[in-house]
Amino acid sequence: MSDVQNLTVLGAGNLGAQIAMFAAYNGKNVVSYDINDDALKAAEGRFENIAKKYRQYFTDQPEEKITEGRQRITQTADLAEAVKDADLIIEAVPEKTEIKNDLYGKLAELLPEKTIVATNTSTFRPSDFAELTGRPEKYLAMHFANDIHKQNIVEIMPTGQTDPEVFKTAVEAAEEFGMVPIELNKEHPGYVINTLFVPWLENGAKLWTRGITDVATVEKVARIITEGDRFTPFRLFDVVGFGVSYAIESNKTDDEDSQEMARRLKWALDNDYLGTENGKGFYLYDDNGEPTGLSELATRDWSSES
Amino acid sequence: MSDVQNLTVLGAGNLGAQIAMFAAYNGKNVVSYDINDDALKAAEGRFENIAKKYRQYFTDQPEEKITEGRQRITQTADLAEAVKDADLIIEAVPEKTEIKNDLYGKLAELLPEKTIVATNTSTFRPSDFAELTGRPEKYLAMHFANDIHKQNIVEIMPTGQTDPEVFKTAVEAAEEFGMVPIELNKEHPGYVINTLFVPWLENGAKLWTRGITDVATVEKVARIITEGDRFTPFRLFDVVGFGVSYAIESNKTDDEDSQEMARRLKWALDNDYLGTENGKGFYLYDDNGEPTGLSELATRDWSSES
Repeated sequence: MSDVQNLTVLGAGNLGAQIAMFAAYNGKNVVSYDINDDALKAAEGRFENIAKKYRQYFTDQPEEKITEGRQRITQTADLAEAVKDADLIIEAVPEKTEIKNDLYGKLAELLPEKTIVATNTSTFRPSDFAELTGRPEKYLAMHFANDIHKQNIVEIMPTGQTDPEVFKTAVEAAEEFGMVPIELNKEHPGYVINTLFVPWLENGAKLWTRGITDVATVEKVARIITEGDRFTPFRLFDVVGFGVSYAIESNKTDDEDSQEMARRLKWALDNDYLGTENGKGFYLYDDNGEPTGLSELATRDWSSES
Repeated sequence: MSDVQNLTVLGAGNLGAQIAMFAAYNGKNVVSYDINDDALKAAEGRFENIAKKYRQYFTDQPEEKITEGRQRITQTADLAEAVKDADLIIEAVPEKTEIKNDLYGKLAELLPEKTIVATNTSTFRPSDFAELTGRPEKYLAMHFANDIHKQNIVEIMPTGQTDPEVFKTAVEAAEEFGMVPIELNKEHPGYVINTLFVPWLENGAKLWTRGITDVATVEKVARIITEGDRFTPFRLFDVVGFGVSYAIESNKTDDEDSQEMARRLKWALDNDYLGTENGKGFYLYDDNGEPTGLSELATRDWSSES
C-alpha cells in the first residue's frame, strides 16, 4: 500500500468529478473541492450521473459499493479545509494559466509537508508550475482520460525535479484506486496518448479539409488497415467532441489546415452537432451509441464555400 | 467492363510480381517485364511463392484458378514487346529518379496511343514524371500495398493533368482485378495510407528513441485505446520490415529522432532482426506468425549507448 489514503481533487468539473468518484468507489477518502456552492451543487449532479454509469458498467458489483463510495466523498468550497489532510492532491481546474497560477500560489501557503501534488493538465507542461507549488520535488502530472471507469488509464509524468520516490507513490496510489498507470520517464508535451493520437486525427482531418479525399474514404482506409471500425479518425473526433476539437483547432491561428477544420467544426456546432455526446457527429448514432451512417457534416460539399 | 484487358507490369520485384500475379489470377492478360533473363528467372520464383500463398489464403477457390492465372502471364525482357498491346501499364521499378526517368523516356517512343500509364511510386510525386511520358493526360498513380492478395487496396491518384476519364478507367480496371480502389481527388505526398500511418509509427518511435517511455508502454497504450492488438506502432514496424524502415529513417539526415531510430534499426539488421519476415522484430513470432513477446531489440537498455 502507498501512503495515500486521503485524496483531494481540486475542481469538480467533468473530469474532476470522475476522478473523485472513481477513487472513492475504489476505497480512497476523497475531498472534492470547487470554488462555490453552485459548483458543488453541479458536482453532486455529476456524481449521480457517474453512479448511473457505474450501475450499467460494473454489473458484477453490489449496489452498496456505489453508495459507500459516494459516502467517502466530502465536498467543500474551502480550499484550506480541502487540503489540510491530503496525502495526494489532483488538480483538475480549468486549463487557464491565471487560474492555475493563482491556485498553486494559494496551495503553497496551505499544504501540509507530506502532500504530493499532481496536475491533470493536458495543454501545459507541469514544469511550468513546479516552482510555484513551493515543492517541485513533490509535484508531477497525472493525466486522466475521459470516461475513466472504462478507459482507466492515467499517464504519470515527472518533471526534471520530481523525486523518484514521489513518482513511485503516485504510481502505486493510482493502481490502488483502479487505474492502469502509464509511466513516462520524462516530461513530454502530449504525454504518450496525445503524441500518438492527435496526429492520427489531424492527418485524417487534413485529407478532408484539403479536398484530397472525402471522409468516407479516410474511414474506409482506416478500417481496412486497422481491421476494426472503432479507431478511425472521424469516429475519434466524434468521441473527443466538437467543443474540444473546435477550441484546439481555432487556437492554431497560424495553421491553414486547422483554420479550415475550425470553420467546418463551427458549422457543426452552429447546427447542433456535438459528436457522440448528442449522437450527432461525423456519424449519426442510435440510442445504443452505435453509428448508423455518415452525417451531413461528413458528406456535404464544402468545396464551394472554401 | 473497362477497356483494360492487357496489363503490363514493368518491374518484377516483390510488389511488381504480386501485381502481375494478382491481375492474372483475376482474369487479365499480363505481361511481366524486367530488365534481363536473371531478373525474369527470379520473378518466376516469386510467382511460385505467391501461388503458394494463394493456396493457403483462397481456400475456397479451385487449384485451376491459380494454374490458369499463371498461364496468363507472359514474361519478357524486351520493353517494346512488353508494351506493344498494353491497355494499362503499371510501373513498379526501383524508386530511383534515374531509373524512372530513363524508363519513361523510352516508353514515350514505344507506347501505342491507347495506353494508360500508372506509377506505383511511394516516394515521388507522379507529376514529377508526367511530362516525360509524353502523355500526361493518360498518366496517374496506382499505389499498391504489400501482400496485395490480403490487403487488396490500391490508392488511385491523379496529377493536375490526368484526364478524369482515364482516372475512371483506372478505378474500374483495378476493381476488375480484385482491388478495392481508394480514390484521391488530387495529388498528395503519402497518399491516404501513409499520411495517416507514417506519423503513427514515427511518433511511437520518437517516444522510445527519446527515452520518454519504453516500447512496452507505447504498445500497451495503443492496445487500450484501439481496443485491439494488431495495430500498435511497433507491430506495424515489424510488418513494414526493418530494411524498408532503416532506408527511410537513415535518409532523414537532418532529423535527430530519425537518426537515433536508424541507429537502433541498424543494430537490429546487424543482429538478424528483419521484422515479421523472419519472425524477429520488436516482437518474436511463432510459426503461425503470432507474437510471443517483446524481443531484445525492444527491451534492451539503449540509453547507455546514446
